[in-house]
Amino acid sequence: MRTRWVAIPVALIVFWLIALTAADDAKAGNPASPIYGVTVPDGYRSWELIAPAREAAPFDELRVVLGNDIAVRAYRNGTLPFPDGSVLVKLAWKEVQSPDFASASIPGAATTVQVMVKDSKKYASSGGWGFGRFIDGVPADEVQHRTCFACHEARVKNRDYVFTRLAP
Amino acid sequence: MRTRWVAIPVALIVFWLIALTAADDAKAGNPASPIYGVTVPDGYRSWELIAPAREAAPFDELRVVLGNDIAVRAYRNGTLPFPDGSVLVKLAWKEVQSPDFASASIPGAATTVQVMVKDSKKYASSGGWGFGRFIDGVPADEVQHRTCFACHEARVKNRDYVFTRLAP
Repeated sequence: MRTRWVAIPVALIVFWLIALTAADDAKAGNPASPIYGVTVPDGYRSWELIAPAREAAPFDELRVVLGNDIAVRAYRNGTLPFPDGSVLVKLAWKEVQSPDFASASIPGAATTVQVMVKDSKKYASSGGWGFGRFIDGVPADEVQHRTCFACHEARVKNRDYVFTRLAP
Repeated sequence: MRTRWVAIPVALIVFWLIALTAADDAKAGNPASPIYGVTVPDGYRSWELIAPAREAAPFDELRVVLGNDIAVRAYRNGTLPFPDGSVLVKLAWKEVQSPDFASASIPGAATTVQVMVKDSKKYASSGGWGFGRFIDGVPADEVQHRTCFACHEARVKNRDYVFTRLAP
């Protein structure tokens, strides 16, 4: 009988410790992309607009690139290469017909969130940029991440590997 | 000779006063829309993203709606009607082919900036919203501004006259 009175609070404490650890994991644990270890940055949804874009078939997406303060300042001043600490986030949604206006299309379901982080030392072998591609917060696989830099390098090396221009 | 020595500093002071007045005018003087007296709000380019959209022909535009803090909070919390002080700004650009990617289109020249300001008393006769449509910072004419509320009222009265939904 006495052991039961001890066992119950001990069990409760153990459960509480497990719960705490799990909560910490979830908090610290924005999962990182393969190869680069890039995560979805906290608070990016409040960052400043760089530009929208549209991707035709097979994507059929509306997209918007947002940038953190360092990146926005670099864009405004035309600073190339982007300074370390620059972060760009591209949000993408399926492009769907507006129910309110025949000629308009609007964001449907969110598809991917793509992140570029500038760290010229850490990412020296990929033009100073680390890449992350996330679906519902989960990083895409390593095979997909192998394609990021090759494409940026082939097409926009002269703009520090960044496709998106600041919208006027 | 003596008059010249007086005239030069007097002239300089006069020029300085004129310059000050002109600078004040430029600062205060975001021109206001007809009917509503709505201006392009300072600093709106740093506001938070509500959603992108696309307008097909004859517009062929990419668009992005940004909102001030009051509007963003209302969107997040699903607050309808929007509280007084809510401001929405829609930026629009010609949709042009990306030179870097065959399937992508991007912002070309800026076309219009459109503003909605919530003030349930001042704009009681137009659902609580004041409207402004600007081209290169210059308000469109009164005829164009007569069309704003009629269209919003006909199509999205049940969402407090606001077309744009928060992108997921």
